Amino acid sequence: MPRIVVEVMPKPEILDPQGKAVNGALPRLGFSGITGVRQGKRFELTVDGPVTPEVLADVRRAAETVLSNPVIEDVVRVEAEESE
Amino acid sequence: MPRIVVEVMPKPEILDPQGKAVNGALPRLGFSGITGVRQGKRFELTVDGPVTPEVLADVRRAAETVLSNPVIEDVVRVEAEESE
Repeated sequence: MPRIVVEVMPKPEILDPQGKAVNGALPRLGFSGITGVRQGKRFELTVDGPVTPEVLADVRRAAETVLSNPVIEDVVRVEAEESE
Repeated sequence: MPRIVVEVMPKPEILDPQGKAVNGALPRLGFSGITGVRQGKRFELTVDGPVTPEVLADVRRAAETVLSNPVIEDVVRVEAEESE
């Protein structure tokens, strides 16, 4: 079944408390060398037909309206992916 | 600054209420043709030096212990990415 991956990240100017929390936890847990963490979302959408350019355009529209909040988030990836 | 992307998804056998909610909302909002949605997480880690194999191994270890819960989640991607 073809799969489309959509990835959403908080805009750079938006505070990201989850990422900050992870960033603060890493050194305490023995992981050094990481200077910043941002946390976003990854969606895997299954579609029931072939991934045509129309389907991809539709998913891109969904990504920008339903899967992300365009005020605070950027859609960073919309891509078909062969499922294993 | 080099960036490492870590992606985490709920294991296939685990219920994913967030993904289910999105999946239910899409047809109501006019998006058809999508038969399934799974929601996971995407992390962008900034590291302060070059991404050596050691750094990547370290991040992979962090991904499997801190960034994901190995009981219910799979790390699906750990990859260096040039920042724009």
